[in-house]
Amino acid sequence: MERDLIAKIGDLVGSAAKDPSVLLGIGDDCAVMASTPGRHLVVTTDTLVEAVHFDLNYFDPWHLGRKTAAVNLSDVGAMGGRPRWALLNLAVRPGLADGFWKDFSMGLMSRLSQYGVGLVGGDTVSTPDRLSVSLTLIGEVEPGKWLGRSRAEPGDLIYCSGNLGEAAAGLKWLKDCKGKRRRFKGRRMPGIRRRVSMVALRRLVARHLDPEPRMALGQALAADGSVRSAIDLSDGVATDLAHICNMSGTGAEVWAHEIPISRALKAISRILGISPLSLALTGGEDFELLWTVSEKNEAGVQRIAAKVLGYRPFRIGKMVVGDRVLLKTRRGTEDITYQGYEHRT
Amino acid sequence: MERDLIAKIGDLVGSAAKDPSVLLGIGDDCAVMASTPGRHLVVTTDTLVEAVHFDLNYFDPWHLGRKTAAVNLSDVGAMGGRPRWALLNLAVRPGLADGFWKDFSMGLMSRLSQYGVGLVGGDTVSTPDRLSVSLTLIGEVEPGKWLGRSRAEPGDLIYCSGNLGEAAAGLKWLKDCKGKRRRFKGRRMPGIRRRVSMVALRRLVARHLDPEPRMALGQALAADGSVRSAIDLSDGVATDLAHICNMSGTGAEVWAHEIPISRALKAISRILGISPLSLALTGGEDFELLWTVSEKNEAGVQRIAAKVLGYRPFRIGKMVVGDRVLLKTRRGTEDITYQGYEHRT
Repeated sequence: MERDLIAKIGDLVGSAAKDPSVLLGIGDDCAVMASTPGRHLVVTTDTLVEAVHFDLNYFDPWHLGRKTAAVNLSDVGAMGGRPRWALLNLAVRPGLADGFWKDFSMGLMSRLSQYGVGLVGGDTVSTPDRLSVSLTLIGEVEPGKWLGRSRAEPGDLIYCSGNLGEAAAGLKWLKDCKGKRRRFKGRRMPGIRRRVSMVALRRLVARHLDPEPRMALGQALAADGSVRSAIDLSDGVATDLAHICNMSGTGAEVWAHEIPISRALKAISRILGISPLSLALTGGEDFELLWTVSEKNEAGVQRIAAKVLGYRPFRIGKMVVGDRVLLKTRRGTEDITYQGYEHRT
Repeated sequence: MERDLIAKIGDLVGSAAKDPSVLLGIGDDCAVMASTPGRHLVVTTDTLVEAVHFDLNYFDPWHLGRKTAAVNLSDVGAMGGRPRWALLNLAVRPGLADGFWKDFSMGLMSRLSQYGVGLVGGDTVSTPDRLSVSLTLIGEVEPGKWLGRSRAEPGDLIYCSGNLGEAAAGLKWLKDCKGKRRRFKGRRMPGIRRRVSMVALRRLVARHLDPEPRMALGQALAADGSVRSAIDLSDGVATDLAHICNMSGTGAEVWAHEIPISRALKAISRILGISPLSLALTGGEDFELLWTVSEKNEAGVQRIAAKVLGYRPFRIGKMVVGDRVLLKTRRGTEDITYQGYEHRT
């Protein structure tokens, strides 16, 4: 079974994009690829475990495939890299529906082929209890042009690429309501229709099920070269900004009133009884890009980001001397360092 | 915990070999590496799952780390590649002994640094039930010089690099005896001492716990360029040779009386009540190299292999027209296609 499942998925995924860089694909001891002369390699990997990172009560296999790709693509995007090749490790449990892996593959393929990524290998093992999916992405980046976490400086302005907290709200909604439905199909959402629109609810749920990696934005910022540091918001601003502080030897202050919170998030937060600001700062998996830029280069970077995004990015704070992430509200200052999202469905 | 464990392992593993090719290591969204100009990339990945591929009753964490590295290194060796960088995905369960990950890391490091491989990234997730370890290796190979599975031709002689069946015998012994001891430490081996020497028994067990990847041999054969196809024997000759037949569109015949079976394997087979030939052909995880070579180039390749191995490699059969793997014995011919080892502890 081992090689068969990866090979089958490879057939599905590979057929979409015949990639001349793949000299030897799935089915040998190793895959062989021709990399682009003059480029550096970037590489990342992420594992999703059933009942820890996803729940099959509301994750259909197609969305699981898409998300598996997206969380890794987001890391490559946050470096400003170009993703090229993927490896897939599956731990398969019994009891999955017929067609599960076909649907998963189609979802995975839909995201990978969107960015020209070919599946070149992997491994499948059987496990009695719990489905687990790891994807490893190899990409390329121009020497000296990647967006790291370690070069932020006090005085840098902090920007993010979109609304925060929506994925966490979507997840909370799915968890609270999953008893009522067998599986999320984007059709029925019972209960709380009156106070939040169907369109808004669907968007929040999609932020959890089908996050959009900020690939084009990361690549544009890397090409420009004036962004000092960047990270994708997988664990929430409070934690991810703390990573930048930690790696750069700086502190940061975040301005509560500048955090982009959508009307939909406000509406659903009232229903769920949670603070939208707390979701926005400590909720994970928004996969928006956060970056820091000097005052001097601020306007230029803002223009580049606005061109890619179609709207102006959000300035949410400033790097400062220190080692903490501080939240500034009208009532005062609060330490939110590493108060991020722990991956638990 | 996520980044901490991989970072800690990275500190341990990385400190052994400061690798100038790693421009950005563990701790960012991606690692960044400078590959060697003019080389192609090779990549492979393998997952080991507790109670499927290993049993902590006889696998101490140090050996588990070494084996995790070795099974992947063996794939790179079988391509004739040079391994460079590794990523590690861990699914960690509760209840592991203090120091488990330190010992694991030291074992992993001992194998990776032997071949100049640096750990550049990974991901750790928590799982309630079952430890699982995936390693992904990225390496390099000279263009046109890799050893694939698809170019064997009828008339090629089939060679292997060492004794077969020993890892499977070692595993069987561990399974049969594991109730008697808490953990294998290479010290006490009760029970069957009288009929097989302690030294021999220890070697068989080491073949399962601590396989030796045939890196130097694979690289030497790839550099020579006259080997037609190669594979590492992870699933046994019957299955791995069937892979070559399948990919090359040929058949193969294996000569029972030429299969290298050690005196130790014969002795323990009598005790275990199994045919040594069956262990040698369908037992897995010997991680010896199998290759095919034309009659014309046979002598030259034999010399190269003998120089690396310190003994002459074993000619065990011949590629033939057809699509089956046939075993030739004194009593006749038997079809052993894909009768390989299924990974089960």
